[in-house]
Amino acid sequence: MSTPPSRLAYLGPPGTFTEAALLSVPEAKFATFDPRSTISEAIASVRRGDADAAMVPLENSVEGSVNFTLDELAFGADELSIRREVLLPITISLLARPGVALADITAVLSMPHGVAQCRAFLSSQLPLAAIEATTSTAEAARLVALSAEPIAALGAPIAATEYGIDVLVNDVGDNPNAMTRFVLVGRSSSPPSAPTGCDRTSVVVFNDDDHPGALLELLEEFAVRGVNLTRIESRPTKEQMGRYCFFVDCEGHVSDARVGEALMGLKRRSAGVRFLGSYGRADVVPVAGAVKEQEFTDAAAWLTAIRTGTA
Amino acid sequence: MSTPPSRLAYLGPPGTFTEAALLSVPEAKFATFDPRSTISEAIASVRRGDADAAMVPLENSVEGSVNFTLDELAFGADELSIRREVLLPITISLLARPGVALADITAVLSMPHGVAQCRAFLSSQLPLAAIEATTSTAEAARLVALSAEPIAALGAPIAATEYGIDVLVNDVGDNPNAMTRFVLVGRSSSPPSAPTGCDRTSVVVFNDDDHPGALLELLEEFAVRGVNLTRIESRPTKEQMGRYCFFVDCEGHVSDARVGEALMGLKRRSAGVRFLGSYGRADVVPVAGAVKEQEFTDAAAWLTAIRTGTA
Amino acid sequence: MSTPPSRLAYLGPPGTFTEAALLSVPEAKFATFDPRSTISEAIASVRRGDADAAMVPLENSVEGSVNFTLDELAFGADELSIRREVLLPITISLLARPGVALADITAVLSMPHGVAQCRAFLSSQLPLAAIEATTSTAEAARLVALSAEPIAALGAPIAATEYGIDVLVNDVGDNPNAMTRFVLVGRSSSPPSAPTGCDRTSVVVFNDDDHPGALLELLEEFAVRGVNLTRIESRPTKEQMGRYCFFVDCEGHVSDARVGEALMGLKRRSAGVRFLGSYGRADVVPVAGAVKEQEFTDAAAWLTAIRTGTA
Amino acid sequence: MSTPPSRLAYLGPPGTFTEAALLSVPEAKFATFDPRSTISEAIASVRRGDADAAMVPLENSVEGSVNFTLDELAFGADELSIRREVLLPITISLLARPGVALADITAVLSMPHGVAQCRAFLSSQLPLAAIEATTSTAEAARLVALSAEPIAALGAPIAATEYGIDVLVNDVGDNPNAMTRFVLVGRSSSPPSAPTGCDRTSVVVFNDDDHPGALLELLEEFAVRGVNLTRIESRPTKEQMGRYCFFVDCEGHVSDARVGEALMGLKRRSAGVRFLGSYGRADVVPVAGAVKEQEFTDAAAWLTAIRTGTA
Repeated sequence: MSTPPSRLAYLGPPGTFTEAALLSVPEAKFATFDPRSTISEAIASVRRGDADAAMVPLENSVEGSVNFTLDELAFGADELSIRREVLLPITISLLARPGVALADITAVLSMPHGVAQCRAFLSSQLPLAAIEATTSTAEAARLVALSAEPIAALGAPIAATEYGIDVLVNDVGDNPNAMTRFVLVGRSSSPPSAPTGCDRTSVVVFNDDDHPGALLELLEEFAVRGVNLTRIESRPTKEQMGRYCFFVDCEGHVSDARVGEALMGLKRRSAGVRFLGSYGRADVVPVAGAVKEQEFTDAAAWLTAIRTGTA
Repeated sequence: MSTPPSRLAYLGPPGTFTEAALLSVPEAKFATFDPRSTISEAIASVRRGDADAAMVPLENSVEGSVNFTLDELAFGADELSIRREVLLPITISLLARPGVALADITAVLSMPHGVAQCRAFLSSQLPLAAIEATTSTAEAARLVALSAEPIAALGAPIAATEYGIDVLVNDVGDNPNAMTRFVLVGRSSSPPSAPTGCDRTSVVVFNDDDHPGALLELLEEFAVRGVNLTRIESRPTKEQMGRYCFFVDCEGHVSDARVGEALMGLKRRSAGVRFLGSYGRADVVPVAGAVKEQEFTDAAAWLTAIRTGTA
Repeated sequence: MSTPPSRLAYLGPPGTFTEAALLSVPEAKFATFDPRSTISEAIASVRRGDADAAMVPLENSVEGSVNFTLDELAFGADELSIRREVLLPITISLLARPGVALADITAVLSMPHGVAQCRAFLSSQLPLAAIEATTSTAEAARLVALSAEPIAALGAPIAATEYGIDVLVNDVGDNPNAMTRFVLVGRSSSPPSAPTGCDRTSVVVFNDDDHPGALLELLEEFAVRGVNLTRIESRPTKEQMGRYCFFVDCEGHVSDARVGEALMGLKRRSAGVRFLGSYGRADVVPVAGAVKEQEFTDAAAWLTAIRTGTA
Repeated sequence: MSTPPSRLAYLGPPGTFTEAALLSVPEAKFATFDPRSTISEAIASVRRGDADAAMVPLENSVEGSVNFTLDELAFGADELSIRREVLLPITISLLARPGVALADITAVLSMPHGVAQCRAFLSSQLPLAAIEATTSTAEAARLVALSAEPIAALGAPIAATEYGIDVLVNDVGDNPNAMTRFVLVGRSSSPPSAPTGCDRTSVVVFNDDDHPGALLELLEEFAVRGVNLTRIESRPTKEQMGRYCFFVDCEGHVSDARVGEALMGLKRRSAGVRFLGSYGRADVVPVAGAVKEQEFTDAAAWLTAIRTGTA
């Protein structure tokens, strides 16, 4: 990406964890932000060309995959390309207007996932408070800011800043290690992000039949080349019950010989592969078998010598 | 199950697709029904012994897995046992009070998934109607029945019967093949359901490390024994980002030699396996390799002869 | 081979089945023949440059591999290249001087393998004849021609012609389907034989350790690419008991994408690979999965498009 | 074997390495010995009941497999059972009558393999001596003892003792690590030898077709159960060119759960398996994964609990 994207969509409104993820990437500098109310709309703005890229959540360490994002990547009209990933600790805080005390709170607002992740705190500290659902954690903060009642929101600290309210209690989630993985998604009309040395590659694989062992065969394409998988996830193809496609994340970059060869193997043995991008790993874990790239180069040189009779 | 369960919980309220699924099984005859407001509560009533079994949704051909159900099966305190599965076409209908015409409708109520599955109908037939979210399709029908306004609900035909309203338009979903797979879940303190000849077996497998190829090895345990997989689904273990367990459905019954041997293989090579049950397939597809059971019996007889010197 | 070899060594003396194999190939036309008394000497003359190629037996359908040939190919100082293979039915005949009748025969001469393959004939038709060992079937014919006694040789019909004796009884071998596979071996300093569409490729693979599953891994390199194996044979490496190398014959030509990729896989995952040649199959069996070559080309084009952002 | 065999056949004549191997086993104590002139005859005497067991060579670390032994085990009328294996260093000595000096020797006698293994010694120390072939190393020693000429034999030190001649030069073989593996073969009508903790199991596997990957599948049966292979060897089935059976040696005893399960897997997926015995390893290498036997026991207990509803 010689020119950084200047218009970045994201799952809004302002004050969401997704906005926090977006603010953490270099592409965000000097860019204009375009909060969208749904994942589909954020991604649609990229497809239309209204935005250069969109930041959306892909999976959470507690809740699992974000199906809207997966389905857009797998089934959307045009192929998209993941340019970057962000791993963000999901530190949920209790947010309220200045002056409101914990003992006063009569209701707690958040999106259902937010509430689900704070059950222990709510039952021990606010057992009598009413729980009210909102469409995002940021929306909860906005409503709290507007209300005159002693109510609170469960959301990101960034939402307090955004809506001019306070963080009353920090880190009230049940699972202190909860993280969300976000991806910055662009159009696939340019080459993948340059290799960083600690890369991840994502694809979706479709099978045309359900012959036994189809998934096994696909995994073998990675295994025989020493390419480690970091995640595999199935999604229904929506055509009929029992038909699935598979999202696979592996270590390495599409420009690596072994990753390229594995992808060609998938292509040959499946009904279709959507390449979703190669991009730097947010956890900066170097590829376990990085040294093997030299083995591929050596083997290719050997094969050429054999084929030309110069061995 | 010599004595059929007499108390059956399900994801309510009355009028849901889950209730329709429950009504379709023989166990429902003579049983008392206990609608519960969440999947967790329905399953908790089984764990506590308040109910003998609970009917809950497991996956939908369009929306994918029902994570609440998966997480209860994988991480709940006690192991549960799937006794039966039901495949139900999800035929969403537009429900309204008698006398309300399509042209009059000002608002449509449903749970978000219900709305999502009827987008094409809504945009072409009711482009101006307001959309209002409810917690279930049955709740939408109940509210429509109570209201004096010309509003409608998107829900199961059974909900119209339940709440005394009419089916105004049948089958308004975008995807005419949409189906949901429900499971009737009991406690695991009794043997699995008896083999039917067209059975499915479900397990959850946990890995203690993330060594490359761990999933491949698990799949090989099935493949070498000719046991076909019908589904594989990953879920985060919630401990840290990047750690997953795997739900695997395979053909056959745990009492089959080859399924039993495959499960022992999983047990040996993984950090843990939760057996989720063997039960008749709702689609009554016979096991592709059923004849192979004889091969297992023959091989076992041969091995005994070798070991005893009577070959 | 722009210029056909003009000096061809073979396992002699004249009149052997090996000479018959050599006569069957186009390279033999206009060439001078150099019979050598051992396989090692025939091959040594190629290594030294005294001969352009040597015809030697590789395996027999009854006796198995010809170890001298395998060891020369695997362990000889320089790599050699199989240029062609010949499949020859081994029709052993009883040869005697003109005028000698079956009832008169007092002794039968042949090399031990020849005798071993005619046991049934000898015990039923010549139960009282002495059996005498010679170093080749041709040598047996030569001795019979020189002798004044009523003795006979077991050998190739070509030996009768060579030494001026008669075929007394045709086809006296126990196994009417016995065949020997011969190979014409040249130096590896020129490119492999051009593809014929029905090719075979041969390699020897060495492992540096004996980790469990090493052979399995090597076979997987072929299997994942749909390359069929036609033969696998182990030979001791002679360093210590329990260490072996593996001769592998597969379908296809080293210039095929899938064969080349499989060979690179072997190269990467083993301690060493000796390429022994790609050459037309004598049985002219087309490669089972020939159509797959297009899949490799398509997959390579797809990968290039992904890497360059032109997909 | 409650009663030790009292009649033991072996590949004779007296003075062979095979006799030395036989003398090293406990079964030889108090037994009567029956030297036979060929491997086939030694084994035939066991099949007929004339001998209780026969000691025969199976493979040599330099020369490879002994095909006569393999073919008897694979194709002989009745199944046999390997009771024990012996690893014997093949220390070839130059044997001559007392008083004969190295400088005097005019001819060297031995079987061809014996000559082949002493090439370096012969060319440097006895470049002018004639080489004469005999049918065994012991026969060479016998002829040397009978002759008045200054001739020598290449053979086992035991042959010098047997025929009353001297060891003139010790250890004249090219390969100081040369070893031969012998097996003591009995009838298969009794149970296998009792486990020793360091056992090996041998089988021959036949395939009914040549579908690609057949060998791979067989190896997988061992690999998925963590059973290490120590050797794999192919032999033609003698029916037609290109059809082979496979001799497989693996670690462990047929009474081990994992070995038994692997053998059942072979049985199911092949056209036939001949069990050739479980017996103590001569090199007393403990099974690498011995601890895994407990995993099999645990997995079996777990499966029983699942099947009976007592988990």
